[in-house]
Amino acid sequence: MNIMYEPIGIIHTGMKEREGTPIQSTFGSEHRGRVELYEQYVEGLCDLDGFSHAYLLFHFHKSSGFSLKVRPFLDETERGVFATRAPRRPNPIGLSIVTILGIEGNTVNFSGVDILDGTPLLDIKPYIGDFDTRGDIRTGWAEPAIKNNQRRHADDRFSE
Amino acid sequence: MNIMYEPIGIIHTGMKEREGTPIQSTFGSEHRGRVELYEQYVEGLCDLDGFSHAYLLFHFHKSSGFSLKVRPFLDETERGVFATRAPRRPNPIGLSIVTILGIEGNTVNFSGVDILDGTPLLDIKPYIGDFDTRGDIRTGWAEPAIKNNQRRHADDRFSE
Repeated sequence: MNIMYEPIGIIHTGMKEREGTPIQSTFGSEHRGRVELYEQYVEGLCDLDGFSHAYLLFHFHKSSGFSLKVRPFLDETERGVFATRAPRRPNPIGLSIVTILGIEGNTVNFSGVDILDGTPLLDIKPYIGDFDTRGDIRTGWAEPAIKNNQRRHADDRFSE
Repeated sequence: MNIMYEPIGIIHTGMKEREGTPIQSTFGSEHRGRVELYEQYVEGLCDLDGFSHAYLLFHFHKSSGFSLKVRPFLDETERGVFATRAPRRPNPIGLSIVTILGIEGNTVNFSGVDILDGTPLLDIKPYIGDFDTRGDIRTGWAEPAIKNNQRRHADDRFSE
């Protein structure tokens, strides 16, 4: 069974290469980007300006192939890919939560950039605290890794 | 540009029809489901059991076509589809945050069910509070709608 999607727009950022790009949007809060939505979808942006944050779902267009075990940016140990946010996944779909700065026409300006310039956009969804925040959570390997690791930007580990 | 994905597994739940299915996983916390990951991807589940919550990304396989303006489950006013979590989207990708109950072999048992039985799974990502919770948020139309609307389950508004 194949599932076919088409980009609904392009994400523009100042990040031209993976190396040096923030590995999470929380680490890229000082960077700004913009979504250029294709004109035929602009009506779907109505009411999004009432939200402070949105999910961007996108295609990791610079990833090819995948590994089931990966060494995530925050760790030196191999982990199951589904326990990481690494880009080389069986279906290379990326998920970022960004801060909406403003919407003009087909452009959504945002901050919180961990996305490469030119990335094809698949979907935008509003971030809704009542649905999307969870308390009392465990975060496995990531908890000590985030505490102890000062890495905030990508290196070349997922390059071909 | 077409982007092609293949399901990595199937999501099994007790929800056979959209009507009556919880509209968010937070409203389906008493329901349990399970991911049946295809055998070739099982190694990718390593380390996921350290996490209490995960994102499931899936294909809304019962949706066909899309509308740029939709009447979301929690509202009677039409909203831009990208300001809603409605299933009839240009790329019908669903996003749920579920609670991991346990992992055995290729099966991930979870609670927090807002997904129809038989839904094709695209990806699993760990939920990481440091990356995925946001404070000081605005949620536009959804804020009064969630406060004032007692609807917790889907009706037939997105049926064909």
